[in-house]
This record gives sequence, C-alpha cells and structure tokens, in this order.
Amino acid sequence: MLHAEIPRGTRILLPPLAAKKRRLEERLLAVFFRWGFQEVVTPTLEYLEGLTRGLGAPYAEHLLKLEERRTGRLLALRPDLTTQVARLAATLLKEQPRPLRFCYVASVFRYHDSATRNLVERHQAGVELIGLESPEADAEMVAMAVECMQEVGLPSFRLAVGQPEFFRSLLSEAGLGEAERQQIQAALQKKDASALEALVARASLRPRDREALLQLPALFGKAEVLERAAALVQSRAAHAALENLRQVYEMLKTYGLEDHVLIDLSDIRGFDYYTGITFEGFTPALGYRICSGGRYDHLLGCYGRSDPATGFAIDVDAVLEALENVQPLAVRTGADCLLMDFRPDKREALRISRELRRRGHRIARDIISRDLQGSLDYARQSGIRFGLLMGLPPLGDDQAVLYDVQRGTHIQVAMAEVVERVDAAIRHACGEESAPPHR
Amino acid sequence: MLHAEIPRGTRILLPPLAAKKRRLEERLLAVFFRWGFQEVVTPTLEYLEGLTRGLGAPYAEHLLKLEERRTGRLLALRPDLTTQVARLAATLLKEQPRPLRFCYVASVFRYHDSATRNLVERHQAGVELIGLESPEADAEMVAMAVECMQEVGLPSFRLAVGQPEFFRSLLSEAGLGEAERQQIQAALQKKDASALEALVARASLRPRDREALLQLPALFGKAEVLERAAALVQSRAAHAALENLRQVYEMLKTYGLEDHVLIDLSDIRGFDYYTGITFEGFTPALGYRICSGGRYDHLLGCYGRSDPATGFAIDVDAVLEALENVQPLAVRTGADCLLMDFRPDKREALRISRELRRRGHRIARDIISRDLQGSLDYARQSGIRFGLLMGLPPLGDDQAVLYDVQRGTHIQVAMAEVVERVDAAIRHACGEESAPPHR
Repeated sequence: MLHAEIPRGTRILLPPLAAKKRRLEERLLAVFFRWGFQEVVTPTLEYLEGLTRGLGAPYAEHLLKLEERRTGRLLALRPDLTTQVARLAATLLKEQPRPLRFCYVASVFRYHDSATRNLVERHQAGVELIGLESPEADAEMVAMAVECMQEVGLPSFRLAVGQPEFFRSLLSEAGLGEAERQQIQAALQKKDASALEALVARASLRPRDREALLQLPALFGKAEVLERAAALVQSRAAHAALENLRQVYEMLKTYGLEDHVLIDLSDIRGFDYYTGITFEGFTPALGYRICSGGRYDHLLGCYGRSDPATGFAIDVDAVLEALENVQPLAVRTGADCLLMDFRPDKREALRISRELRRRGHRIARDIISRDLQGSLDYARQSGIRFGLLMGLPPLGDDQAVLYDVQRGTHIQVAMAEVVERVDAAIRHACGEESAPPHR
Repeated sequence: MLHAEIPRGTRILLPPLAAKKRRLEERLLAVFFRWGFQEVVTPTLEYLEGLTRGLGAPYAEHLLKLEERRTGRLLALRPDLTTQVARLAATLLKEQPRPLRFCYVASVFRYHDSATRNLVERHQAGVELIGLESPEADAEMVAMAVECMQEVGLPSFRLAVGQPEFFRSLLSEAGLGEAERQQIQAALQKKDASALEALVARASLRPRDREALLQLPALFGKAEVLERAAALVQSRAAHAALENLRQVYEMLKTYGLEDHVLIDLSDIRGFDYYTGITFEGFTPALGYRICSGGRYDHLLGCYGRSDPATGFAIDVDAVLEALENVQPLAVRTGADCLLMDFRPDKREALRISRELRRRGHRIARDIISRDLQGSLDYARQSGIRFGLLMGLPPLGDDQAVLYDVQRGTHIQVAMAEVVERVDAAIRHACGEESAPPHR
C-alpha cells in the first residue's frame, strides 16, 4: 500500500505509546519548571540563513530545505531548538536581565547522515541556560539531566561528561595540518582505533603527542581520567580544560551524583557550537544516546550579543524506547466505560455520561447499531474495562447492568445509584492496575 | 536585524504565552479524554501523493513541499491531521473494531491563499470519530466542541452548524454548468452578495432556483431556518440534507446546547472532503473562526477502506488570542523563589533547593556574580516573587533572609525552618494570585 507509506525516519505513535510520550514530556517539563525554567515555543520553519549563521554553513547539508513561495527565499525545518533559543536571547530578548532559563518540547528534523540520507523527525525536550559562565551552571545542567532520568523512572543510566577544548588543545599542541586534523577527528568520531593508529603513525609528530592521541580513546572513566589526561598534555589551554572539568566534577560530587557521571575526554561530537563542558546520556536499555548537551559560549555572538550559555536536550523518542525495554510507563488510554442505551430517548444516557465525565472518568457512548454481544466484544477489543447497559428488555427503566468486560462478570445496579457505582468501580480498577486515575 | 526575522505567518511564543498555550492544550485534551478519545502522534512530513489522495490534487497548491533527498520523491508538511488519521484508520488500523476515537495536538502548515502566498503554521487540537454514520455522532462532535470552549473559559461563543449537501443539491436542482457553479460557489464563499446577484441574473435559471440561490446567504439563524430552507427546494437530496440537520439540531437540544448553536446553510467551505454535517465556531472576541469540523464519509475510502467519519479541530492559536482579549488564562511561569548563597560551600543551597523542588516549587539558583541588590533587581525584573538569601555577613550560618521581591519586604528566618517558611510563603502567594500551585 504505497499511500500508507510514511517517510523513513518518521513515526506514527498509536495509543498507548502516544499517551506514554505525553506522560514522559509532562514529567520532564515538571523537572524543568521546578528548576525555574520557562517554556518557549518557536516556529518549525526558519530562514536557512538564520539557522546556518549559528550552526555553521556546512551544517546546511543536514537540513530539510524548501523555498518560501512569497519571497523565493530558502527555508529550513529546525534541526534543534538551541540555535533558535540562542538567536531569540541575542535579539528579541537582548535587553532582558540574565540569566535566562528557557525550556521547550518540540520536533526537530535532520538528514541523518550523508550515507543513508534518511530524514529523521525526533521529539526533543530541552533547556537552555543563558548568561552564566561558571562551572556551577554546567553542573546544574548535568544535575537536571540526572533528575530527568530519575523522574521518568529509567532504572539505570550514565552521563558522560567531556570537555572538547582538551581535544582541540591537544591537536593544536601536536601542530598537525588541517587535513590530518580532520582525518584524525573522523577516526575518533567513529571510534576507529586502527584508522587512528595508521593516521598517527603516518603523521610527523613528537612521540609524546603521538602517545597522547593514541591514549585519547581510553580517556574515559572516573576521576582518575583527569590525572591520566593531565600527564599527556603540556599546553596551558589543555590544562585549563581539565581544570574546568575537575571543578564541574567536584560540584557534581557535592550534588551526590558521582555514581551517575563518567568523565569522557574521547568524545568528539557533532554541532560545532560547543565550547566547554559537554555531556551525553546513555542507558544499557538502548544502543544510542538518550540526551546530550553542553556549553556554547560563541553561539549567541553569531546573532549579535555575546553571552555564555549552556543547555541540553533529551531525545524523547529514545527515552520512550528505553523505558519500553525495561520499565514501561503506566498509562490508561482507552475509555473507562462504554455506555450503551438501547432506548430511543437518549436523555438519561447523556445525563449519566455528563455526570461521570464531570468526575474525571472517560466515558465513550456506543452509538453504533449492534446487539449487546457486539457492543461487549467491541469494548473488550478496544481495552475498555467497563460497559454500562441501559434500556434493554427485560430491564426496567430503573435498572442498569454494569459489566466488567475484561473479567466477564456483571452486576445489576439501580439507576438511582448508577453514577456512584460506576465511579467506584473505575476508581477501584485504577488502584488494581496501579495506573493513576485521570485528571 | 535580518537574522532575527522569522517567516511571516509563524510565531514565537514567549513566557507566559507559551505556558497559556500548554494549559489550554491540557484542558482540551482533558475534554477529549473524558469523551473516550485516545491521542495519536503523526509525522510532520508526508509523501505528497499520500496527502493529495485524500485532500484532492488541487489542494497541493496550499502545501509546503520539498524533495526527499534519499528518493527524490516530493514530501509535504501536513496541512491537517484529519487526512493523516483517516489514512491511518483505513490502512494500519483497518482491522480494528469501530468506532475509533482519536485525538491529537499538533502543528499544521499551509500557504494561506494564493493572493498573499503566506505560509502559516498553526497549532491545532482535534478529534476524529471513525466508523459511525448516525446523527448522534455528529451531535457528539458539536457537544464536545461546546464543552471545549466552556472548559477553557471562553465566555461567549457560537457554533454554526451546516450541511453542504443542501447547497450541492440546490446547485444540482438548478442544472447549472460547471463554470457557473464554480463562480457562484466562489461568490458565496466570499459572501459577495452583488457578485452573486449578477451571476444568478446572468444564468439561465428557473425563477424558484434563482430565488433559492439568492436566499442562500440568509439561511442563517435558529430552527426556523430549516423551514425557510425547506420552502426553497424540491429535490429529495436537499430535503434529506435538511432532515439530517434537523435530527442533529434536535439532539443538540437534548444536550441542552441550543443557546450555543446556530444553523448555517450559507457556509460553503474549504476542504472538499466534507460530506455531511459541518460546523464552525466563532466568538465575539475574535474576527475569525476558532474551530471547525464536520463529516467526511468519503475520505477513508480514498485510502482503501470505506468508513463514515466525523471530527473537528480547534485552532489553539485562535482560542489563545480570543482568551487574551477577554479572559486570559491564569498561569505562573517564572521561578517562585531565587536562591542566593554568598558562601563558597554550596551544599546547603543545594539541599534547600532540592527540598523545595521536591514540594513542587520552582526554585532558580542565582549563580551569577553580583551584589545583593543586583540579584534582587534581577528577581524583580524576571517576575520572581521571592528571594532567599543565605551566607551574607552579618548573617550567621543559622539565619537566612526571605525577601518578598514584588512587595519590597523581608523577614529573617532561622535556617532550621527555612524550607517550611518558604513553602508557606509560596503557597500563600499562589492563593493571592488565584493561580494554581505547580504540580
């Protein structure tokens, strides 16, 4: 069925997965709000030139582009919110007192990589903290990311914290040419040890720089990594990067988070706008990262007002997938009760539906013409727990029948008590399933 | 500032407007859920051919299109969710028992019209009810739309309910050619009475058909409209359309909704997929419609499984704008309290922040280096109500100062009681501002 096909890299979320996504986003936003962040909403489309000003021109390759009909100018779908929020802070909000704390939940769009050329739409929830340069701000980001993972119930995860300035200084110390740099960077990004060895062997390097580059992929672990790294480099810039990382790590220990944090100096990543502490989140439940973030002190300057800044984004789809693997979120999505009235006068059915909805329950009316068994089958197949039957002979107008559709039991209920009885039955079922009652 | 420009027809929502949007969407979803609808999430991008199959080829003019890099096929940004959900129901979910009740909150994208050629991104919240053909299903849609408007607190609104089959039968009775039909339809869509008169005068029509077409724009009002309309037409199809509308109107009276409902036979609208009862919502607080919906019994058939269906979408941006004009939603978006600790050891500040956040409060840390007055100014300008100061001489380690920043008052608080005191102060302030405390 060609017309049923959706673009590769995009998804349809059916119930109950869509409900889990909403619940996940609500929990993440609740964390963001508690840390004093305020939500902003940005356009899905931007002028290409506005995005590449911050992302760098080469990133345009990853953007989904189209022409604006009115002007003929190139538009692109946003690949992240960081660039949009940074631009907003540097332009429209340039006079606002700092720090700014913003958060968002939104879709982002990219061509995944030049090999597969797949477009990818993903749902992100993230924060940006603008106007603070101290390591405390970096630590706040990592601490919030940890709280997010705990809040959504992910049982096991690690945040790998790095400092790309260390790698940049190391390359600069080594005095490599641009081509060699790029090749070595590519080998490191792919974690391709044999390519790295070959490149390093071929390059004209002092022994200690060669050793440092070969050691780089191993600079991953607990605090001792900082000492190992310090022994490999000489430049002031490299030691400053390590000192910065040490300060943030100390602060994370103050937060009591060392169990969740690893130091990772081997990570050489995507967006070129990162300038300081970066981090990525992983869980054994998933083979790719669930969140990432870092400091981007030069990005706002691209839009006319320099400001230090840091932030992170959680890959909602990734966390959802990880949770499904280990600890699915509890949600109830279908109707609580299907209300069937076989009489032509529907006033009583409407009144009872309204009363039950007013109490927060999810009541669907069975409007279709079918017999009782058909209605009960529909309820069972649709995951509806209860069925309330009225107006079918030999029941009088003062009696109804309440079916527990999933258990296959039923009881007769006086119409005068029907709202109370259904209300109680639904509440009891919520408790049994340890799912929260609806708002 | 060219790089600060966003495409015309798109918006940035800053706090507190973004928070109001979220609150609005939560309330709308709560209504949808109570009526037994389940959320689905669909891709922002689709293959063009998949969308136009349901929307009709001419609609492609309104779509934002781009080429998929991997395949070279044309993609389009979704202009609505109805088409996507209908396709989903007819393909992936074709075996699921009916009715299906789905809802969504999402962005949609269109070129507004061929004159201005502005692209428009809007936020919609809507429902689709698939598999029911009875007037009760149409009435359910209108009743839900009314409940949505009441739930978000819109003080005054009307839903205009129409039946496009009436107009189609009327045109068919009149025996007009295709060109004349289209011109008359265009004049009616623009509510251009003089153009309509000229077209009707020029066409070769029986006097009664001429009279009927001229009367069409006046077929707007309460139940008596049905009688006036019935006197104008003869065909069985036209009378069937009126009878269908009468049944739905009767049912809406049973719901007690006649005060919110008008009958509108003059409305000739956009999407060609509507086949039965349609409706649009208006409020005096805004000059354009806030919601629209209707029956689309042929749409699923375009995707391979025939099914009657109906639904509606609320224009979230429009309702937000209307509410801002008359009855703004109450939200609190900024931090509740700014926590300032002037000591180098931040452990106490972290502990108190954590405790207060655990109670659901929004606590921002003031990490920037500035004096007390600078911090208090920042809090005031950022709309933060309270400031908690610790560790500034001559305060001892066992004393803190709680500032009510907006009132310019302060009290001294023992550290042992600080969490309780700040908690109580924030709760009291929530009550004063009649805004809900945070979750």
